[in-house]
Amino acid sequence: MSAGLPPNARTLVGIGDDAAVLATPDGRVVATTDFLLEGRHFRRDWSSAADVGHKAAARSLADCAAMGAVPTALLVALAAPPGLAVSWARELTEGLAAECARVGASVIGGDTAQADRVLLAVTGLGDLAGRPPVLRSGARPGDLVAVAGPLGHAAAGLALLQAGLTEDPLVAAQLRPAPPYDAGPEAASLGATAMIDVSDGLLADLGHIARASGVLIDLDSARLRPGDRLQHAARAVAAAVLHNPLDRTSQVSRPAGTDALTWVLTGGEDHALAAAFPDGTRLPPRWTVIGAVRQPAGDAGGGVVLDGQPRAGLPGWDHFA
Amino acid sequence: MSAGLPPNARTLVGIGDDAAVLATPDGRVVATTDFLLEGRHFRRDWSSAADVGHKAAARSLADCAAMGAVPTALLVALAAPPGLAVSWARELTEGLAAECARVGASVIGGDTAQADRVLLAVTGLGDLAGRPPVLRSGARPGDLVAVAGPLGHAAAGLALLQAGLTEDPLVAAQLRPAPPYDAGPEAASLGATAMIDVSDGLLADLGHIARASGVLIDLDSARLRPGDRLQHAARAVAAAVLHNPLDRTSQVSRPAGTDALTWVLTGGEDHALAAAFPDGTRLPPRWTVIGAVRQPAGDAGGGVVLDGQPRAGLPGWDHFA
Repeated sequence: MSAGLPPNARTLVGIGDDAAVLATPDGRVVATTDFLLEGRHFRRDWSSAADVGHKAAARSLADCAAMGAVPTALLVALAAPPGLAVSWARELTEGLAAECARVGASVIGGDTAQADRVLLAVTGLGDLAGRPPVLRSGARPGDLVAVAGPLGHAAAGLALLQAGLTEDPLVAAQLRPAPPYDAGPEAASLGATAMIDVSDGLLADLGHIARASGVLIDLDSARLRPGDRLQHAARAVAAAVLHNPLDRTSQVSRPAGTDALTWVLTGGEDHALAAAFPDGTRLPPRWTVIGAVRQPAGDAGGGVVLDGQPRAGLPGWDHFA
Repeated sequence: MSAGLPPNARTLVGIGDDAAVLATPDGRVVATTDFLLEGRHFRRDWSSAADVGHKAAARSLADCAAMGAVPTALLVALAAPPGLAVSWARELTEGLAAECARVGASVIGGDTAQADRVLLAVTGLGDLAGRPPVLRSGARPGDLVAVAGPLGHAAAGLALLQAGLTEDPLVAAQLRPAPPYDAGPEAASLGATAMIDVSDGLLADLGHIARASGVLIDLDSARLRPGDRLQHAARAVAAAVLHNPLDRTSQVSRPAGTDALTWVLTGGEDHALAAAFPDGTRLPPRWTVIGAVRQPAGDAGGGVVLDGQPRAGLPGWDHFA
């Protein structure tokens, strides 16, 4: 699958030997592996092959960025049904390469196999450029909590697809999310104390930071109000659902609902970056402050609250312990 | 899946964050990804969960060794049926960790998902320790060709299993191959000009070196005679097949046959290391010289011959171009 996959300057040995060799001048390498599964993360009747390539690459590239690293390379294990068209695999490869090109990364290796459904396991490698990695465990009381990138757009796109509303521009956010990769190294340079990419939903992922850091994250609902595009999509989905039940024959594990605030708080897959920064950090415009880090009361442990109050009942909500 | 997976000194950030961070003091990292698929590479009625972990790790660790690198870390993507016992996954993890421990490597990350059959995609990372990587393309006329590790044992083990002869000690070579990992960095230190791990079969894999290097590899059949254990297994399989046809309901793509020399020449999965060395290199005892590199005649291109003669008709045989 080397055709259409140009190496970059860091690729010392590329596709075609027993293994690749990547330059890591920093003396460390960031590494992560993620699945992208047909039926769970995409449907071939909704996503083009190029969409699938973009989305598979985005998951691992965003994980690297969430450590504060510049993503540098991918290794792609692709299992596919034997009858899959050669053109589909070629377009998938083009999608992988195009998403990598957004950050200057390359596909440097991989493997192929047969399976009943399309399955990708993508390993991302990244470069910290001399900075410490930004972990989930470093948030401290008094820190700001901010987010870069869209929230709830991919979830809205899924709901629109489930409702058959394929013309809404938010559908693209589900099929081909566009993580703000360079916001990751930017946050590291600004002194971010903790960071995560929003893959499971804002509340769930901030819950990971809160528990790993042993802090309370208090979100300001006024900063999380869904914008006009999300509100419009929610009304459109609700109207469509009145006439036809949602299509949940696939991607069933993530019914996307019809409520715009739920999309913002619990929708994953946009791969926005959420980070904690020391109070007073001057953040570039693409970072929106959405809350603050507080000391948990007594021995309550880490958790996430909205306007100071626990708010249970939302899918993806991490209960305040 | 972090339980039972101890980090090593190179693991700066292990399992549990968005990505791992691995020390790469050499300034380069070797990286490779390989599938291990139920039905194709193992059967759960033949392999224990620990066997599967060992085998999955071995594929990627051996690829790193074949570059001349010391394997340092694995990332493991595991898809499994929802009904799979928790104990099976735990024993798989123990097998992965135990195989890693043979070389001082650690499992530093991964992902899990559901699938109809067990599937692993394992990424191996390795350290070249200041040496140039040993590629497939460096073999030169006049070089020795040598191999470290067993040939044909895993193929014999598969044939024994297919014939129902589960008591033969060679069965273990199929279920849990033991690649000579440290022979890889050793070969690099000795000046190996080309190297590969024997995963597809000796003839096929030497064919990769021959074509990449544009040379002829001439094997000496006297050096490749199957030993007593292989001969004994071949007779046992042949006798059993007289009474019962081979079980080829699974792992069907690799019928292992009954001929010991065929196992040696075309059996993969032992992950022996095959390398070319400058003539006169003093090789440690575990390396067996099996042939020599020659200049191809005219514009014939690279290929492999046995005792100076092309030998077609064997599965896995790479025809002399």
